[in-house]
Amino acid sequence: MNVRKVGLIGAGVIGAGWAARLVLNGIDVALYDPDPEVERKVGEVLANAERAYRKLTLAPLPRRGSVTFARSVEEAVADADFVQESAPEREDLKIRLLAQVDRACRPDVVIGTSTSGLLPTRLQSGMAHPERFTVGHPFNPVYLLPLVEICGGERTSEATKERAATFYRSIGMKPLMLRKEIDGFIADRLMEALWREALHLVNDDVATVEEIDDAVRFGCGLRWSFMGTFLVYRIAGGEAGMRHFMAQFGPALKLPWTKLEAPELTDELLEKIVAQSDAQAGDRSIRELERLRDDCLVSVMQGLRSHHWGAGEVLAAYEEKLYEASHAHVMGAGDDLAQPLRLHEARVLPEWIDYNGHMTESRYLQVFGDASDALFRYVGIDEAYHRAGLSYYTVETHIMHLREVEAGVPLHVTTQILGADEKRIHLFHSLHRSDDGTRLATAEQMLLHVDTNAGRACPAREDVRERVLRIAAAHRDLPRPDFAGRQVGAPRR
Amino acid sequence: MNVRKVGLIGAGVIGAGWAARLVLNGIDVALYDPDPEVERKVGEVLANAERAYRKLTLAPLPRRGSVTFARSVEEAVADADFVQESAPEREDLKIRLLAQVDRACRPDVVIGTSTSGLLPTRLQSGMAHPERFTVGHPFNPVYLLPLVEICGGERTSEATKERAATFYRSIGMKPLMLRKEIDGFIADRLMEALWREALHLVNDDVATVEEIDDAVRFGCGLRWSFMGTFLVYRIAGGEAGMRHFMAQFGPALKLPWTKLEAPELTDELLEKIVAQSDAQAGDRSIRELERLRDDCLVSVMQGLRSHHWGAGEVLAAYEEKLYEASHAHVMGAGDDLAQPLRLHEARVLPEWIDYNGHMTESRYLQVFGDASDALFRYVGIDEAYHRAGLSYYTVETHIMHLREVEAGVPLHVTTQILGADEKRIHLFHSLHRSDDGTRLATAEQMLLHVDTNAGRACPAREDVRERVLRIAAAHRDLPRPDFAGRQVGAPRR
Repeated sequence: MNVRKVGLIGAGVIGAGWAARLVLNGIDVALYDPDPEVERKVGEVLANAERAYRKLTLAPLPRRGSVTFARSVEEAVADADFVQESAPEREDLKIRLLAQVDRACRPDVVIGTSTSGLLPTRLQSGMAHPERFTVGHPFNPVYLLPLVEICGGERTSEATKERAATFYRSIGMKPLMLRKEIDGFIADRLMEALWREALHLVNDDVATVEEIDDAVRFGCGLRWSFMGTFLVYRIAGGEAGMRHFMAQFGPALKLPWTKLEAPELTDELLEKIVAQSDAQAGDRSIRELERLRDDCLVSVMQGLRSHHWGAGEVLAAYEEKLYEASHAHVMGAGDDLAQPLRLHEARVLPEWIDYNGHMTESRYLQVFGDASDALFRYVGIDEAYHRAGLSYYTVETHIMHLREVEAGVPLHVTTQILGADEKRIHLFHSLHRSDDGTRLATAEQMLLHVDTNAGRACPAREDVRERVLRIAAAHRDLPRPDFAGRQVGAPRR
Repeated sequence: MNVRKVGLIGAGVIGAGWAARLVLNGIDVALYDPDPEVERKVGEVLANAERAYRKLTLAPLPRRGSVTFARSVEEAVADADFVQESAPEREDLKIRLLAQVDRACRPDVVIGTSTSGLLPTRLQSGMAHPERFTVGHPFNPVYLLPLVEICGGERTSEATKERAATFYRSIGMKPLMLRKEIDGFIADRLMEALWREALHLVNDDVATVEEIDDAVRFGCGLRWSFMGTFLVYRIAGGEAGMRHFMAQFGPALKLPWTKLEAPELTDELLEKIVAQSDAQAGDRSIRELERLRDDCLVSVMQGLRSHHWGAGEVLAAYEEKLYEASHAHVMGAGDDLAQPLRLHEARVLPEWIDYNGHMTESRYLQVFGDASDALFRYVGIDEAYHRAGLSYYTVETHIMHLREVEAGVPLHVTTQILGADEKRIHLFHSLHRSDDGTRLATAEQMLLHVDTNAGRACPAREDVRERVLRIAAAHRDLPRPDFAGRQVGAPRR
């Protein structure tokens, strides 16, 4: 099935999201929606989606597909290779529209519906070719979230579900094949249970909508972005795993911790859960799963930190407090300045590794930049200094890459000041493995002190300048580093 | 309240998680748990937590607190400034332990319990000083997840809840104050509703535990890591917001989409939800909220990509497919080589911005590295080439930083080959703003072709070498770039 054009029926939030995912993946779409404002609304969703894709990946996207606004259902699906219906959630409306689509498009074309939970057997009841119809239930925003639930009705063919899954996969999605037809499928049953419980909490004045959202986004929601409840609870069982967890929390299923009654925890259900959980975990130990969970949590929280939102905002505030508490880093009268300074330590993180299996080149400069930041703190530059519009900028850098380094290796940087005046610091960083001392790289840099509001060089504040000059004086007689003053490609001395 | 030492009662998964968060924040702990293996188990959780914190932040952590294993409840709490009880979820056991703690510790000490849902009024029933007792319900892993629910019993004082919140905040957590005492508090009621629905699905053979987890982690779970259901649904309502969403999906509350009955959607409940949702959203428009949501989703998925897990694995597979599809990037016979090559475009992402409000220095090198990667693809280097153990490594770099740049600015790199032989490429990249052409930085680099298995230089494959030399020959007569051959600190020519 080579899909070059998709017919979209309904262009609300979901239909417009499909349009965005499709055109960004190089597929033409023809849309039908009776809303007179459809062009503007779809255009705005497309703009947001393009913006998101520019951030999502640096990989080359195909040439954008085209968008046509059709004047009828028939026109939208006439020469489509695939059809996706995203009309409002009314069974009668969908049955009628789907029968209309069925009559108007080629008989080999798969017809998907975006319904969140209506039964496909009923939706396909008016179709002459019901075998080519399936649920393909996406999640908002359709252009970013990978999940699509595939659920056939009684008259849907297996081939249709496979073809739909292949197509959705080709546009970056993750199909989940349902084994049974059920109202709400899987995802919406879970979401709906949580949602109805939340509505009870608001109705009973236990919590506000904001408090309920906070209870999710600062806690369990962070885990759910990469592990479902079963795997999370397996880990919570500790070394003894799922059986222990169920033994420990089984009794809580009888407690009034939600208005939903749990099923009886029979031996049969317990054994089924344990066996399926074992299969899910594979040969990963609980400690390995814990580390995977922690790595994912750290990455998620760091990702959110860039947007000053949710758990990322909590992390940013926490870090600010840590930096404020570390005033001891400022240079003191008794400090030994007779050697290069050792102010920064780090460890090679897994996400710093490139396709060669080693720390990627820009991370070397990141570590050197962090070492410069440590030097700034050491000479008395703090948040207030930056808020006052004063800062050092790097104007020139020369790096020698001497050795590769793998994930997990501890690192430290030593820093020698080669020269300084009231505006400039000329320094030389050396990056070492801390386990065996091997030198991995060097960076010679020129830093310029600037008035960031005026955008031009200016002298550093007197106390900062005094500390910088004191270090420079103490370092004046240290041996000049081997790679200082080097130009790219010069013969090794 | 200056907390220097915390007494911990119970050191299972939750108690050990508290120990880890506390000692990493410089607080001493004394633990009591009758488990004979407690020292080993706590040690393993501490090791995982230390590992996670090394990744979580580069901010300087305080000097680690100490861990003491006490032989009794009394010994653990004797000189504690705060006590946290994390015994198994049995009401009788907790009542007994809390009364024991109450007798043994200073009367000014706040006593928190980690219970997931037992009622504080009952838990404090055996205490002589019940006013200093509160629920402080954390989430696993306690050392990473910020949420802690604070819920007092009938005899808890307001001051106790405030003091507990201040303390939890000081160790990087996000307290959520409950207005009402209720079984399961807020978070566990939501989690428990979803969990019980999930157990029904397994019990009824609708889905396996893995399928249920997938329905969360590839869809709604990604959103829940930064927005709860109310805000997510407000956005799903499109421009018309929460009232429209409730009008559209209100009828679904009557559908059998979960085994949990919803409350009646009365006008009063509807108005309450709309008003609280408006308050939550503040003055953010739906389009702004959409962009915030998309930015967070992109960051979360990119974070997970580094761990080849969940939605991150889907993204990685998608990108690999995009790169494979872009074979047109390989140099063709008719290509114009008379100018520097323009092979790479990017855009300044918000997370590339440092405390000065500009793109941080290491991101310049990242963009240059991506431009080198684009050059490699252009001369015919693909995944198979790397899998065969062949690659170019950067051995030396000189960067000139000429201008600052802010988030959102489109960038492109032009690349001139200054010289090449069978093993080396000497190149010069220039980074420009694409909107007005301003040159932002330059990078002169020496790349060496290596046999990555043997770890030494070797000639490039013949077709790759031929393309490199052809570009070098075509670029030989281009003007030599102004900053080529420069050493750090040399006078500007």
